[in-house]
Amino acid sequence: MKKLIVIMLCFGFSALNVVQAQTDQDVIKSIYNNSLTQGKSYDWLNYLSNQIGGRLSGSVNAQQAVEWTKEEMEKLGFDKVWLQPVMVPKWVRGGKEYAYIESSSGKSTTVNICALGSSVATPSLGIKAPVVEVKTFDDLARIGKDSIAGKIVFFNRPMNPKFIETFNAYSDANDQRTKGAREASKYGAVGVIVRSLNLRLDDFPHTGNMSYGDLPDNQKIPAAAISTNDAELLSTMLSLDKDLKFYFKQNCRQLDDVQSYNVVGQITGSEFPNEYIVVGGHLDSWDLADGSHDDGAGCMQSMDVLRLLKISGIKPKHSIRVVLFMNEENGLRGGTKYAELAKQNNEKHIFALESDSGGFTPRGFSFDCTDEQFEKIIAWKPLFKPYLIHYFEQGHSGADVGRLKNGTTVLAGLSPDSQRYFDYHHAANDTFDAVDKRELELGAATMASMVYLIDKYGTN
Amino acid sequence: MKKLIVIMLCFGFSALNVVQAQTDQDVIKSIYNNSLTQGKSYDWLNYLSNQIGGRLSGSVNAQQAVEWTKEEMEKLGFDKVWLQPVMVPKWVRGGKEYAYIESSSGKSTTVNICALGSSVATPSLGIKAPVVEVKTFDDLARIGKDSIAGKIVFFNRPMNPKFIETFNAYSDANDQRTKGAREASKYGAVGVIVRSLNLRLDDFPHTGNMSYGDLPDNQKIPAAAISTNDAELLSTMLSLDKDLKFYFKQNCRQLDDVQSYNVVGQITGSEFPNEYIVVGGHLDSWDLADGSHDDGAGCMQSMDVLRLLKISGIKPKHSIRVVLFMNEENGLRGGTKYAELAKQNNEKHIFALESDSGGFTPRGFSFDCTDEQFEKIIAWKPLFKPYLIHYFEQGHSGADVGRLKNGTTVLAGLSPDSQRYFDYHHAANDTFDAVDKRELELGAATMASMVYLIDKYGTN
Repeated sequence: MKKLIVIMLCFGFSALNVVQAQTDQDVIKSIYNNSLTQGKSYDWLNYLSNQIGGRLSGSVNAQQAVEWTKEEMEKLGFDKVWLQPVMVPKWVRGGKEYAYIESSSGKSTTVNICALGSSVATPSLGIKAPVVEVKTFDDLARIGKDSIAGKIVFFNRPMNPKFIETFNAYSDANDQRTKGAREASKYGAVGVIVRSLNLRLDDFPHTGNMSYGDLPDNQKIPAAAISTNDAELLSTMLSLDKDLKFYFKQNCRQLDDVQSYNVVGQITGSEFPNEYIVVGGHLDSWDLADGSHDDGAGCMQSMDVLRLLKISGIKPKHSIRVVLFMNEENGLRGGTKYAELAKQNNEKHIFALESDSGGFTPRGFSFDCTDEQFEKIIAWKPLFKPYLIHYFEQGHSGADVGRLKNGTTVLAGLSPDSQRYFDYHHAANDTFDAVDKRELELGAATMASMVYLIDKYGTN
Repeated sequence: MKKLIVIMLCFGFSALNVVQAQTDQDVIKSIYNNSLTQGKSYDWLNYLSNQIGGRLSGSVNAQQAVEWTKEEMEKLGFDKVWLQPVMVPKWVRGGKEYAYIESSSGKSTTVNICALGSSVATPSLGIKAPVVEVKTFDDLARIGKDSIAGKIVFFNRPMNPKFIETFNAYSDANDQRTKGAREASKYGAVGVIVRSLNLRLDDFPHTGNMSYGDLPDNQKIPAAAISTNDAELLSTMLSLDKDLKFYFKQNCRQLDDVQSYNVVGQITGSEFPNEYIVVGGHLDSWDLADGSHDDGAGCMQSMDVLRLLKISGIKPKHSIRVVLFMNEENGLRGGTKYAELAKQNNEKHIFALESDSGGFTPRGFSFDCTDEQFEKIIAWKPLFKPYLIHYFEQGHSGADVGRLKNGTTVLAGLSPDSQRYFDYHHAANDTFDAVDKRELELGAATMASMVYLIDKYGTN
């Protein structure tokens, strides 16, 4: 007994002190300090972006990213790292697109376009046709089939700058991109050109997925995005010369589905190993750039969340998983597969957090949960004040974790500052140099801190 | 009477409705909408940065900026626009600096340096000397005169990444730059090289002002900043070869003071024309770049505050002034002069707001005021929530408006997101392309909204 007391005096008391001293404030401070001084997200992103590059689903790069992230997670000593097989669509861009405006006097001006994801190609010699400019699908109905048939429909409704959160401006404008071709085809259009979803005026065309819905193959018309500067140019030229023609050529193709994978790493929980907390982003990207913000940033942050918990000495009660979802951009097959398997295996998920809004300064979170759950979570808000995290709102979570929605799992999305996101989104300038190290690291720390609290206190 | 009623029915009621409908929420929404759809700050900044450029006090560019901003304000139809003469120091960099590290085996490696503002030149052939690396002034005392005399002191204490607000990391590190030469000289050093105040590792040396205090001329030693990458290199090389030498050459000179100006524009108040609200930034910049963030942004935002109030139909009760202060960087003469004249002319200032922390997404304000005043102001915080403005704290206001401090005037600084500021601060990359249009415009709207509320409700 005396010996025990001596041992306690030597070791026990100090251990006790450590435990007592580790308030939530202290733990969160240590998570932020660790991210800002020894974070890995930025170095990893450098590798992913500059050594692997763009990672369109089904591409060699996407497969390399799967293998590399799995290896990195194994090196981190997680309890379990594995791949979840999932078949993904494979769309390829082919050669670079080409387009010009031809005035009725025959003078031509080249413009910057790119095929929209999932679009069909033009005929091999391209398409040249007169242009009808519209802002909405109602415009199509108003103008009518007689005036649209045989022409290229030019969707030119700018993102609305009045929205403070730019994702709202995106939602408000993206029907042109996602459904423009489908709608224009019904009026006999031969192609569509869509103003890039970019709040800035510049020369980058922004790709992104589109869908023909249930349109039969022979009614699928090619769809391309045009840079905002060139959209302005085309509109101005049209107002002066309504008989001008637009030419474009693209060689994209939809191939057969191919095998790919979600990458999953896990720290197994000490008390509730069969209850899961997920943190993730999507590993695929578009092909025009290396996808540093969309969503290399979210993937690398998510990997670092587990590492930050480890190096901050946190032993989670629940099993914490990082999931790098495949194919968010043009299919959402990875998110769908993960949710399917979770259900099939009866895995109880208490929380799933996605980072897919760019690696910018974190402002907070958006939660998809019940009012009671939100009330519990919002009580933690003061813990985040020193880190200038103030945005706790109920709303959308994220496309991939959204597949886990079941009324009990709390779903959430990291909400970074959104002002610059659409400057880069799906365009050739979404590259590593557009990411700031501290902003990325603050995001990882913010995510890790929320995971720490959820793990400690639960969601109900 | 009947006629009056008819007139009221025709005009009065609608006018009444407008007035009633114009809640503070509505007015603030219209200010933000106007800034985001027809703001001028970004176009102006393009002109100031790309047509005029860097504006070091006493330079031709600084004078051009004075003339151009005065003209622009006159075009805006302010009630009064004038120049406030102020004598400013004129320091010139001369030819580009040159520096290398010479190993004891004679191999040399060039590195990126720039003279610190107000520094003396090296002798015309430069200085070559052994190097003593230190982190603090205490290190100097510990190492002692015998080991320092005849050497170059290399201050290499990095900005501390653990500070969430980077301005705190700046305050924590900048004694090396401002007082390093003065302190090292006391130990017989022949020059100082200071690690750039930059949280990032890159190749840009960051200038900024230093002072010799009351050191006699013959004890003034030249001081230069070295890029963070080269500071790391020098430190590593020193650890391997403590006998290496450092060579640098700079040709800067302090000339006689020259005439310059603050630029002031005013909308005269309808009820309290002799009570003033000031909004401003500093028009001078360092010379290595065009000073887009520091502080072209703040100047252009401040000019647009008055314009936004006008186009949003707000007729202020107090006189609102935009003041573009001259010489914040190396003398603060403009701010001092403005305060001097305000006192001399018995001008009652109720509020002065400065934007001098970069054109990044606004997060809120820092207020230097009494607790009672702060209590009144913080009650308006909910009005800013839709614009994701949440930071209302008591603290520092700004260097220029700080000169107005008298215990009754509320002083404030706009607090933008600070994560990227020191990537650009005083370096060759502080250029127009580093400024985001929306972030700049949101800042101008946030400032205008606060000015609107202060004007309407006062500060007491």
